[in-house]
Amino acid sequence: MAASLEKSGFLTHIRTNRSRLSPCYRPMVVTMVRNQSYCVSNEVEIKEYLKKALPIRPPFSVFEPMHHLTFTAPRTKAPVLCIAACELTGGDRSRALAAAAAAALHLMHAATFTHENLPVTDRPRPKPEVPHKFGPNVELLTGDGIMPFGLELLARSMDQAQNDPDQILRVIVEITRAIGSQGMIDGRYRELEMDLSQENTGRVMDYVCEKKKVELHACGAACGAILGGGDEVEIEKLRKYGDYVGMIHGMLNGIGKNKEGLIEEKTERLRILALKELEIFKGKNVLISSLCSA
Amino acid sequence: MAASLEKSGFLTHIRTNRSRLSPCYRPMVVTMVRNQSYCVSNEVEIKEYLKKALPIRPPFSVFEPMHHLTFTAPRTKAPVLCIAACELTGGDRSRALAAAAAAALHLMHAATFTHENLPVTDRPRPKPEVPHKFGPNVELLTGDGIMPFGLELLARSMDQAQNDPDQILRVIVEITRAIGSQGMIDGRYRELEMDLSQENTGRVMDYVCEKKKVELHACGAACGAILGGGDEVEIEKLRKYGDYVGMIHGMLNGIGKNKEGLIEEKTERLRILALKELEIFKGKNVLISSLCSA
Repeated sequence: MAASLEKSGFLTHIRTNRSRLSPCYRPMVVTMVRNQSYCVSNEVEIKEYLKKALPIRPPFSVFEPMHHLTFTAPRTKAPVLCIAACELTGGDRSRALAAAAAAALHLMHAATFTHENLPVTDRPRPKPEVPHKFGPNVELLTGDGIMPFGLELLARSMDQAQNDPDQILRVIVEITRAIGSQGMIDGRYRELEMDLSQENTGRVMDYVCEKKKVELHACGAACGAILGGGDEVEIEKLRKYGDYVGMIHGMLNGIGKNKEGLIEEKTERLRILALKELEIFKGKNVLISSLCSA
Repeated sequence: MAASLEKSGFLTHIRTNRSRLSPCYRPMVVTMVRNQSYCVSNEVEIKEYLKKALPIRPPFSVFEPMHHLTFTAPRTKAPVLCIAACELTGGDRSRALAAAAAAALHLMHAATFTHENLPVTDRPRPKPEVPHKFGPNVELLTGDGIMPFGLELLARSMDQAQNDPDQILRVIVEITRAIGSQGMIDGRYRELEMDLSQENTGRVMDYVCEKKKVELHACGAACGAILGGGDEVEIEKLRKYGDYVGMIHGMLNGIGKNKEGLIEEKTERLRILALKELEIFKGKNVLISSLCSA
């Protein structure tokens, strides 16, 4: 997949936006915070939240695989984007609001990752080997259990006095759409069709990446902005920022290994576009800007 | 499974409740409405709601299997219980409120049914053959798409002016719990363990039936009562009523074929217990009572 991506039109988006970069592009006001500790500390916070929410308890046959598959699924930047966007739009007091949504985003990703790696009988080409601690039936069931658990966690967060139920419902709609039949599922279908036809066109590959990876990041940032009480302009700016962050990390994880110089140039352009989306927050402590660095 | 159920202790619940039936049991005030058309008309209403919510539209590769698997999944009484309980607690004006929740309940059941019948490689004993229109990968993906769609549908119903977002969030918690790791998923795990060990004990079989079938009915009735604005006593009475309805229909669909006389006697006892739960609604038009008939 990495090699194919390199040949693909995955970067069409950057090319179409190149005109925004020069020659009339003005220097940005927002300075990129390169402090990676912000990202790490948020990731630790989300992990701790999940550990409390999902202890290994009876029935062990259910919760042990749930715990294992939740914590071994690879991390994305979507949950951190959610917390950071909430903090940016709502200030310090809002950090806690986004914890349940950030946890739900990771759980949705973990459920999808688990099901994507099931040895289903008619998969035309095997995916790269993922170590399986449990049998396919248990992994199927566990993915089915993780998904509603994530949304339950979010719906239950209404119990916190400061939470607005309308905002939580809006976030549930955002997340279910991002992981559903017009989001992540659509991407997984197209990928399957691509595997069956054995034709990898750049356009289809772009579409699959957008649906499977990028949109979850955009959703994460938008959810954080909604919970932080951001206005519609702020929500859409942060959604777009999340979109760029998703593209940057997708590129770095997928095709960044061989032609480092080329990838670096392209991700740098995406970073400039990403930071431009944050300009409306001029004067605030825009810690979220560190998430578009490598 | 039907034969094993016969030997099992599935009916322990009735036996333990027998003392409540006689000799001090007083004649019930609520008369059972035996009009099946109430149930049928509600089922038609839910189907129409789902048809509008889930048209076959592009991308067809996604929506055609979603549509097919949603409408071919066997029906349960849980969605009808939801509408009927909402109508009972909230009057005519509340009927529409429960449509999204009823549709969500059917969608959760359809997603589970789809995944339960996947030909996963390590299933110890094959389930009874279910016709498959699509390959395992598409069915896996479709189940993954149906589940969030049901919850999105419910969360989106906040847009209707008369809906209370707190009630909708409470219903989301109810449904995600019923289908999640302490509800339906727990039952599916136990069933898998039972299949692996090839030991069917009555107690485990009871537990599996309770988790996989009965609790969804109880959840349906409770959700309807919540959306209808019922108080906590009414919600719990209707939850218990839904529980009995789930047991009755579980028995009739599972073991009612061979020893009709015995089953009839047992379901009749369950009906009496079920109707007892409705006594607090004396004086109202208790159409929901028809749902505990065969």
